[in-house]
Amino acid sequence: MRNLKDLTYGIVGLGIMGGSIAKAIRENILCQSGSTGKIYVCNRSTSCLTQALNEGIADKAFTSNEYEKMLPECDFVYVCLYPHATIDFLEQNKKFFKSGAIVTDISGVKGIFEKSLPEILRPDVDFIIGHPMAGGEKEGYVNSTAKMFINHNYILCPLPENKAENLEIMRNFISEIGFTRITETTCDIHDYKIGFTSQLCHVIACSLVDSAKDEQITAFGGGSFEDLTRIAMINAPLWTELFISNKEKLVGHIENFENQINKFKNAIKNEDKDSLMKLMEESREKRIKMGSIRTVAKK
Amino acid sequence: MRNLKDLTYGIVGLGIMGGSIAKAIRENILCQSGSTGKIYVCNRSTSCLTQALNEGIADKAFTSNEYEKMLPECDFVYVCLYPHATIDFLEQNKKFFKSGAIVTDISGVKGIFEKSLPEILRPDVDFIIGHPMAGGEKEGYVNSTAKMFINHNYILCPLPENKAENLEIMRNFISEIGFTRITETTCDIHDYKIGFTSQLCHVIACSLVDSAKDEQITAFGGGSFEDLTRIAMINAPLWTELFISNKEKLVGHIENFENQINKFKNAIKNEDKDSLMKLMEESREKRIKMGSIRTVAKK
Repeated sequence: MRNLKDLTYGIVGLGIMGGSIAKAIRENILCQSGSTGKIYVCNRSTSCLTQALNEGIADKAFTSNEYEKMLPECDFVYVCLYPHATIDFLEQNKKFFKSGAIVTDISGVKGIFEKSLPEILRPDVDFIIGHPMAGGEKEGYVNSTAKMFINHNYILCPLPENKAENLEIMRNFISEIGFTRITETTCDIHDYKIGFTSQLCHVIACSLVDSAKDEQITAFGGGSFEDLTRIAMINAPLWTELFISNKEKLVGHIENFENQINKFKNAIKNEDKDSLMKLMEESREKRIKMGSIRTVAKK
Repeated sequence: MRNLKDLTYGIVGLGIMGGSIAKAIRENILCQSGSTGKIYVCNRSTSCLTQALNEGIADKAFTSNEYEKMLPECDFVYVCLYPHATIDFLEQNKKFFKSGAIVTDISGVKGIFEKSLPEILRPDVDFIIGHPMAGGEKEGYVNSTAKMFINHNYILCPLPENKAENLEIMRNFISEIGFTRITETTCDIHDYKIGFTSQLCHVIACSLVDSAKDEQITAFGGGSFEDLTRIAMINAPLWTELFISNKEKLVGHIENFENQINKFKNAIKNEDKDSLMKLMEESREKRIKMGSIRTVAKK
């Protein structure tokens, strides 16, 4: 099996995610003794490329006109672009991938990949569908960090055509860069569950901020409002794409949530103490069963 | 002016809040050189009383049948009970307070106090209405800590009948135990704003947990769901009381929030990218303006 420390990695898109992946590879994989591996990076704007070279994170940097130079050399390509940009990138650069390369991406919706992959990739290139469950409300390479993934979850959606050896390389890679829990499932289940844990939460956080009458409200904050709205500092173009790509599932989740909040509202309106107690006892018990989830400290 | 370090403090109710207040007084005020102050505590169940005595937090402990022994000795009484229990306590023990005592409480709704105070307190006892904006999802004296209030907000709702000197003592006290921002306002504004920053957030967190189909959902968590639902580990009897005591204002906030989430839902349903972008740009900008709010680390 190919050894992670000797692969040439290609990072396409050097924002907060691409940057963090590059830094985590440098710090956890290429630092191993005898490593012959390399990190190649490319990005549309070039200031982060210079920075990554200066910091010793990248061995070579390419602009977005130079994919044909970079891709043929990469054993493992990590596409860190928006979802539709990722599909466009795969389609437009199909012929440049190295034969036998592993290709993966970071996109938060997966169904669209399962549908398009057969048409847009060569059979000798192994695209492994997955989703690193990490990120931050701050964007760009300047906010990337090698520690981004420690104690986080990763979702893999293996396809029948993925090679067993490549899946094993992928799992090792994910663990090496810091993730502690890998869940394997289908694209459909991924999109359903992420629609709930991530997309619905972002819709709620934004709606809550939008419904604030008063920006000075924070003198009255005790922690709850802050916790619920941290993620409202949202990247609008990215999340517009994610929400619309997962429309049916997300709208279903919003409707379930609306039904629940409506139960609360009615119980409060009617001063129905028994129903309120029951609703809150259920949520307390359910939330405790869900466990502590992640133990990672906030950045 | 009376010196904080020489007062006798009475803490009524030794749960997470009462315990933390006692510990913060011990650590920040009574440790000052030449202090002659004391901390007296009382609680319905007695195991926490023993613990507070053993730990050197309390100088004397009383059961809930012994208010008539404790209250006449206290210069500063902090009532750390549920809202209606606080009003009952004030009413039933009216005659035991020391003349000139400062009395305050921790309750998260304030309008009910403004209404009932004239009837339930003697004119020679100065009740200062306020709300320490801190707490935790874990209950009881065992979870109390002297650090609870560091970097948190305090809301004061002074009444015309409060003595200026006592308000000054109260402000000093609040700062000494760790709070960094004191906002002074009316009970009505307090209840309106807390209905938004605290109560609405708890309703949302519980509704979100209640709408989860699956307790194993947390393998799909990247931080958002965890942040939005930490406060769903809720104390049901307390929050039932808070929600119903602030019914009109809270229902208004829920309805505003429902209108906002409905805008999101419709924009997603209709694949209306422009509206989605606009909604999210607004929430991002608004949330950034609201600032970092609190810098305190999570417990």
